[in-house]
Amino acid sequence: MHAILDADYLCHLGFVRDGAPVVLPTLYARVGERLYVHGSTGSRPLRGAGEDTGLAVCLTVTHVDGLVLARSAIHHSVNYRCVVVHGVARQVTDPAERSAALDALIDHIVPGRAADSRPANARELAATAVVALDLHEVSAKVRTGGPNDDPEDLALPHWTGVLPVTRTYGEPVPADGLDPSITAPGYLTER
Amino acid sequence: MHAILDADYLCHLGFVRDGAPVVLPTLYARVGERLYVHGSTGSRPLRGAGEDTGLAVCLTVTHVDGLVLARSAIHHSVNYRCVVVHGVARQVTDPAERSAALDALIDHIVPGRAADSRPANARELAATAVVALDLHEVSAKVRTGGPNDDPEDLALPHWTGVLPVTRTYGEPVPADGLDPSITAPGYLTER
Repeated sequence: MHAILDADYLCHLGFVRDGAPVVLPTLYARVGERLYVHGSTGSRPLRGAGEDTGLAVCLTVTHVDGLVLARSAIHHSVNYRCVVVHGVARQVTDPAERSAALDALIDHIVPGRAADSRPANARELAATAVVALDLHEVSAKVRTGGPNDDPEDLALPHWTGVLPVTRTYGEPVPADGLDPSITAPGYLTER
Repeated sequence: MHAILDADYLCHLGFVRDGAPVVLPTLYARVGERLYVHGSTGSRPLRGAGEDTGLAVCLTVTHVDGLVLARSAIHHSVNYRCVVVHGVARQVTDPAERSAALDALIDHIVPGRAADSRPANARELAATAVVALDLHEVSAKVRTGGPNDDPEDLALPHWTGVLPVTRTYGEPVPADGLDPSITAPGYLTER
């Protein structure tokens, strides 16, 4: 489960608002048996995580690894790795933990970047919501391998197999106005 | 919103079970102003969609388009496109609509594939859950462009810009036992 969580940085965070489900995308990082979730996307809903009771959430991370094409329509599938975390999200109030959590979020997305950027100052840290979710109730689901056609379909003339899917990174695009002598760092170009 | 929905096939579906949020990944397709969601992943929870009241859901689709590296840690961000659909999911009971929905799901993931596979028979159709969700309450959120550093940070020596992210497809991998004379179809190799 750690490996699946560490292989991504986008999660979908679900919670209940006025009795109805809400699912929002946000960024996360894992530190030991705790996830840190960036609160900006969900600043309004995650307000509940600042209350004494915290906020009941379901955090789900899914990688698509392949499209599985069977001979029969019904056996088409997708190879994937998914982790579902249930728990209570709580605002991180300790300044040191909040600072470390922000570094972890950046380094989880681009390893090595936290040290190569201007750290957040006290004002920025105070204005940023970070939410912690412990890895107590966690489940994983994985599908791998090829299609599972029924025996009576094996002679059908349709191509069958897997189309691999990956997330890939392009060439770094410098921001407007960047000093041309500042070249893209190795943690980007060697990604 | 249609364009964002049509550019993906994986969604995260949220609902409330025993008062707690649940978020599961599943596959979807758009047909006009209606989404069809494959019920297999969520067969147990989506049972509620078969009741008269349907099941209140939140369906979210998110593409990550780039990692945004600012000079300051706090302004790091992600370029993304996201659609959030709130509504009531209902089981599709009409056999013709269910059959069309399954074709749409397959063609949404691999355009052209539904016609190049053995169609579902009556027994398979009866055993498959398909859920419909109308596009009534839909919102989108998009971030594009470069980093937004504060003026006082513009002279810092850190590289800044965007690392593009895309989903890419590899070479089709034939299933074990596939007749070697059946070559991968154009809708896969030209993807």
